[in-house]
Amino acid sequence: MKDTQRRLDNLTKPPGSLGYLEELAVKVAGITKNIYPDLSKKSHIIMVGDHGVVKEGVSAFPQEVTKAMVKNFLNGGAAVNVLANQYNVEISIVDIGMKHSFKSKNLINENIKKGTENILQGSAMTTKEAIKSIEVGIKVAQKLIDKGTKILGTGEMGIGNTTPSSAVVSVVTGESVEKVVGYGTGIDDDGLKSKINVIKKSIEINKPDKNDGIDILSKVGGLEIGGMAGVMLAGAANNVPVLVDGLISGAAAIIAYLIEPKVANFLLPSHKSVEPGHQRLYEFLKMRPILDLDMRLGEGTGAILGMGIIESSNRIIKEMATFDSLDL
Amino acid sequence: MKDTQRRLDNLTKPPGSLGYLEELAVKVAGITKNIYPDLSKKSHIIMVGDHGVVKEGVSAFPQEVTKAMVKNFLNGGAAVNVLANQYNVEISIVDIGMKHSFKSKNLINENIKKGTENILQGSAMTTKEAIKSIEVGIKVAQKLIDKGTKILGTGEMGIGNTTPSSAVVSVVTGESVEKVVGYGTGIDDDGLKSKINVIKKSIEINKPDKNDGIDILSKVGGLEIGGMAGVMLAGAANNVPVLVDGLISGAAAIIAYLIEPKVANFLLPSHKSVEPGHQRLYEFLKMRPILDLDMRLGEGTGAILGMGIIESSNRIIKEMATFDSLDL
Repeated sequence: MKDTQRRLDNLTKPPGSLGYLEELAVKVAGITKNIYPDLSKKSHIIMVGDHGVVKEGVSAFPQEVTKAMVKNFLNGGAAVNVLANQYNVEISIVDIGMKHSFKSKNLINENIKKGTENILQGSAMTTKEAIKSIEVGIKVAQKLIDKGTKILGTGEMGIGNTTPSSAVVSVVTGESVEKVVGYGTGIDDDGLKSKINVIKKSIEINKPDKNDGIDILSKVGGLEIGGMAGVMLAGAANNVPVLVDGLISGAAAIIAYLIEPKVANFLLPSHKSVEPGHQRLYEFLKMRPILDLDMRLGEGTGAILGMGIIESSNRIIKEMATFDSLDL
Repeated sequence: MKDTQRRLDNLTKPPGSLGYLEELAVKVAGITKNIYPDLSKKSHIIMVGDHGVVKEGVSAFPQEVTKAMVKNFLNGGAAVNVLANQYNVEISIVDIGMKHSFKSKNLINENIKKGTENILQGSAMTTKEAIKSIEVGIKVAQKLIDKGTKILGTGEMGIGNTTPSSAVVSVVTGESVEKVVGYGTGIDDDGLKSKINVIKKSIEINKPDKNDGIDILSKVGGLEIGGMAGVMLAGAANNVPVLVDGLISGAAAIIAYLIEPKVANFLLPSHKSVEPGHQRLYEFLKMRPILDLDMRLGEGTGAILGMGIIESSNRIIKEMATFDSLDL
């Protein structure tokens, strides 16, 4: 990282004038242990899971949309596909817990259970299932890394998943539920009140241990959250940077952080979502989001845009001339 | 713009969930009068000029660096070249007022004068030269547009040019000089005090008319500022979006705005610089910068990164599936 800073200071620009791009170049050097990191092969993993709590009316969309959107991903029609095409990112879609599970040659089948249980009535999943969800994430990421992936994005699909994610953020950061909950994909004010109540009660009933990532994941989390936490842990273990996306991916980041705090050093916070819980968790992790575009779509759309900025910082360190070469 | 909003609301995502990307798609539709704008050919114009006021010690770098950096641009070694390569943007470099002017087949020679006069001792240039600088910008941009350019970036090089730019911003916005001046490429606190005094005195001596863009440009401006204002006016006249870069490009934007306020509708504010004057001028123009990466390099580095985000919003509107096509 020091060598990278030295090189940055010798490039043909005033020292520090590329601001956060320079900090990102230094961070990626640390992650990859390389002044000139190879980030050529980019992969993005979308973890898909459903949520029993959707019964409580916490989402503006019916649960069938999870399956429909997975088909949309497979057909290349979603926002994440479009952005991945722009930045030449390969997408892997993982059924880790869909309710309406189906087979397709381009869908990675790792279904652990057909959606979580309703967290208003007990744990989302067993401890064993929570651990298994993390292991699935590790396995999928490791396969991609073994095939040459140099940078990973995390994204998800799962109707209702801002509810468990907000619960996770509230438990870990200690921030009140009211302050972390947002409108998700577009509920109204009554829906928001009801969502707050559901989350509060689910925390009361399940009593997750705020210092135990697996306990929180199993009690108020989601299978796709565990899957993304696994991807982050695998990235860190392999010196591969991992982009955090929005609220749900952020919830995965703090679960991974509770399991192993050092993982935070390997994460790149792509963007700041409009979900208030997302901002709280970045404060908790002491991370500065790269972009702030009022996005709240998920899928990893912010992660892909963040990869574009990371690519810029990577090109700067590799391709710019140094002052020594200037003809003064 | 309404048709674009309607299409955005029918794409496979919750309405509004792509935030500012959606607003940008709507704005670009208005600029180009097209729901599916063709932004395939991207050009970036770097206007280069020197400044007599450099004699007063307002910059951390000697004036020779202007010429050295132009050679660096021509050799492809500067930050702007690296980012332009990433986003497939063609760069045009224009000598509109270099002191150490030189010939090169890839440098557009439109030198109006060998640097401005020292604004501490009178006008930067004559009214005729100020008008000519705008005309050069129009001519260069028009040529590119005639050859198929669909989106334009503005950038500059000119040691000392945060001084005239800060003067322009202070005069137009009415904000005190103290509040708009920053450290530029890296002067120290004493340098900052001296820079503030120089700008204050130059405004006192020259008495620019705050409502007259050409008057301000000629009295306390710069040739590259006039050139970029011309590029913006030409873009607007041709329904071609123009990216505003940092403080100096922003000063050009408010000069262009004073000449024709409607030009603001055709400008896209790429990023928020650390220069305090840059933030003031965006407030004045009621624009929200796309990126905030603490950059302060100039050259159009922010403009190129902004083009990446504009391309994303353009791809979203063109390539995403609609809800009608979803298999629910």
